[in-house]
Order: sequence, then structure tokens, then C-alpha cells
Amino acid sequence: MSEPVIILVRPQLVENIGMVARAMKNCALHQLRLVSPRDHWPLQQLQKERMEAAASGAEDIFANTRIFHTTADAVADMQTVYATTARPRDMVKEVITPRRAADEARTRIKAGEKIAFLFGPERTGLENEDLQCAEKIINIPANPDFSSINIAQAVLLMAYEWYTSGYEGPMCKMELGKTVPASKKELNSFFSRMESELEICGFYTNPDMKPAMQQNLRNAFLRASLTEQEIRTLQGVLTALADGPKRSRKVS
Amino acid sequence: MSEPVIILVRPQLVENIGMVARAMKNCALHQLRLVSPRDHWPLQQLQKERMEAAASGAEDIFANTRIFHTTADAVADMQTVYATTARPRDMVKEVITPRRAADEARTRIKAGEKIAFLFGPERTGLENEDLQCAEKIINIPANPDFSSINIAQAVLLMAYEWYTSGYEGPMCKMELGKTVPASKKELNSFFSRMESELEICGFYTNPDMKPAMQQNLRNAFLRASLTEQEIRTLQGVLTALADGPKRSRKVS
Repeated sequence: MSEPVIILVRPQLVENIGMVARAMKNCALHQLRLVSPRDHWPLQQLQKERMEAAASGAEDIFANTRIFHTTADAVADMQTVYATTARPRDMVKEVITPRRAADEARTRIKAGEKIAFLFGPERTGLENEDLQCAEKIINIPANPDFSSINIAQAVLLMAYEWYTSGYEGPMCKMELGKTVPASKKELNSFFSRMESELEICGFYTNPDMKPAMQQNLRNAFLRASLTEQEIRTLQGVLTALADGPKRSRKVS
Repeated sequence: MSEPVIILVRPQLVENIGMVARAMKNCALHQLRLVSPRDHWPLQQLQKERMEAAASGAEDIFANTRIFHTTADAVADMQTVYATTARPRDMVKEVITPRRAADEARTRIKAGEKIAFLFGPERTGLENEDLQCAEKIINIPANPDFSSINIAQAVLLMAYEWYTSGYEGPMCKMELGKTVPASKKELNSFFSRMESELEICGFYTNPDMKPAMQQNLRNAFLRASLTEQEIRTLQGVLTALADGPKRSRKVS
């Protein structure tokens, strides 16, 4: 098992279980366990349908979902368990952020450990007896004046932190399609032509300001990270403007 | 305005608008704008109720919600706009992660800029015309086989990244309640007593192994980061075990 297990303790609403499945699949998680769900499994047809509608394409998660009577049973084969709870408890335990938990879990899983994230029932949250099964507590940073997070949202945030802790893509990337960034030669050829056309048009009324104006215009275009194709288009724009209004074009 | 504006373009379901409000308030965001929502505002009573039920305590967001006809109108007073979309488009634009966008936005807002995050309609996502209003595209990292994220979940993830980009709390913290970590003196006094009690009980059958066994036991207890109170309890545990079964206690 190369991913953490998501455990919902005494979940109340089948819609939430469905949304949890969707959030899990969005973040490439597949192992769901339920401890004493309010509605007994296998679910009745109507409830199954409501859950699957909320899962919105992630119903395959339910084929592997395992049901347990107690939290202790559900975590019996785990080696490290992280419990999510917003409430401070009268017990001595390490409290960490979702991001730190995701990083730790990834390191532990790479070393072969079995890891679970525990989520409590909708209204009441995890009981002390559940927290007793967990090494650490995850506290999701949230507005202190409105910190109650829906269970599917909590699972999403934790699953997202798990997914992004393994994200190796770029933080930023220019989407270029079929074109490539312009070379300095292409850029400079455009700049020189623009500057000589502007000279011809009498744009530089104050010769002392000319170097600064040229520099500012070059910087503005540089910031746009222009492509080869865009330089060709801008050369065409210069030609059209320099040629002036076409006699053949009818202007109303 | 010291926070980014959330703009939903042509949102379809009032329940999603409600869940967006909840996600925003969870992350201390308050400014919501809607571009041509499917259901006209002010909403009819029934729809208003469905939206407020989904907002689950965040209804105050709607008191400040502003409605616009076009995306261009909605962003007219903004200085930098980030558009969230999962789809690669046939246009040259910088694509960044939510985390990078949140960091950038925080820097810009500190410098006095007005920033917006744009989210598209449920099924179709943002159109090219909407993307034309945005400097950059935010691509939420997700399972490539199941990347369709509910709009409220997308807002939550972006709002969460915004919130955590300003989070200055600890990544991990031992929750101690009213007690304090044990001092080395208290720890060593416990270790010495445990070791002498074990000596008396004949625990060290192989004298050569004794130093290693003591070291391992000390390390196991050290990893627990024991508190003053716990050391006192463990001293009591040692006393109780060393005294052996109490004659006065009735054992059935």
C-alpha cells in the first residue's frame, strides 16, 4: 500500500461519504474505511444512490471500502495514525499542520509504513477514545471565528496536501502551445524597427528623453515574454501603422 | 481591501454558491462577486433558503456579494486577476500552482494591489473570453485520471492556500495543557530508579547486555517527550510494581 488510508469515524450522512470519495479520487487516494457509519452497510438502494450521486464519478472507491465496528479495529494494521480535529483536548499530544503531516506520512510510507488519517463525525468530531488511537493530531489552519469545516472539505484539504507533497511539476510554467519564446535577435530586431519608425514619425520630441523612453518601452515588451509568433505579429502591426490608412479601405 | 476577491463566473447551482461562501469564511475571505448567475439575484425565497442552508453559517458573505453582467465588468477595478482552470488552452499564458498564486497575491496585496481569483461555471469551466481578463492561470494539481473538481472545492483549495500563505503558527507543537516537559534531572531520576528496581528483580540476566538494554529503554522513554506529571505517574507505576500485589486487594 503506497498511500495513506482515509478513515471516517461514525459518519452520519451518505452524501458526505460520497463527497469524501470524490475528494479522495481527485487526489489519487483509494483506500476508504468507515467506523460504524450511521446507515448500515450494505446501504439500502435509495441511500446508495444518494451517496453515488455525491461521489460524482468516484463510485469505484466504494468497491474497496471496508467497514469496522470500532476505531481501534479500523487502525489495527496501521503503524502511524493522524487524527484531524479542530478542538484542543485535555491530553498531551503533538499537534501538526496538514502540510507537515503530509510530508511526514510520505516519508513514512516510502519507508514501508502503513499510515491512516482519521476524521470524526459531522457534528461532534472525534472522541477522546478515538484520539487514543492516534500518534498525532492534525489541526487544519482556519479562520478562528468560523473554523467548522465540512468533513468532505477536511478530507479534501488533507488529501490535497498529500497529493501536492508528491507534486514534482513546476510551480510556474509559460503555456506556449506550438510556438517558442522569441530569441533576443528577434526581439532586438523588433525593438530597433519600432524605434526607427517612431523616429520617422517624430515621436521623440525631446531628444534628452529619448534614451529613457526607449528603455521603458523595451522593458514593457520584455515583461510580456513575447513568443516568436507574437514578434511576427507585432512586426506586422508596425508595418500596418507605418503605412497609415489604406486608401482602398472604406472608412465610414 | 486586504484580501483577494472571489469571482464566480456564471455559477449554475445556488447550493454551490452557498458552499463557496462557507469555504471563503473558513479561510477568512469575505468579498464575493457573481457574473451572470443562472438564477437571477435577488433570489426567490426557496432558492435563497437552499443557498443559505449550504452556506451553513456563512450567510453574512451574501450581504456584500456583488452581481455583474460580464467578467470584464467584474474585474474592472482589479489590478491582477488569476483564473482557475484545469484545461490547457490555445493561448500563451503563465500557468502557476495555487500555492505560488497565493504567495504572489499576498505580496501584491501587501503592496496595495487589488487581486481577484476567477472560477468558471460548473460544467463548462471558463471560456476564452473570461481568460482574456486574467494575467495568469492557476492549475490545481489533481489526479490526471479524475481532475474534475467541484467549484466549492476549488474555491476552498485556493482560499486555503491564501489562508496558509499567511499562517505564522508552528508547523508542529506539543499540546501540553497545564503541565510542562520533564527536566533532565526528573527524567534521570526516573531512569536510575527504574534501572535499580530492574536490577533487584533480576531483569538483567546477561550482564554484558545490560548497558545496551538500559540505553534502549532510556531511548524509548526519551522519544515519548514525557512531562513532569507523567514522570510522577511513572514513578508511582514503579512503586506499585515493585511493591507487588497488595494483600488487601481482593482478586477474583
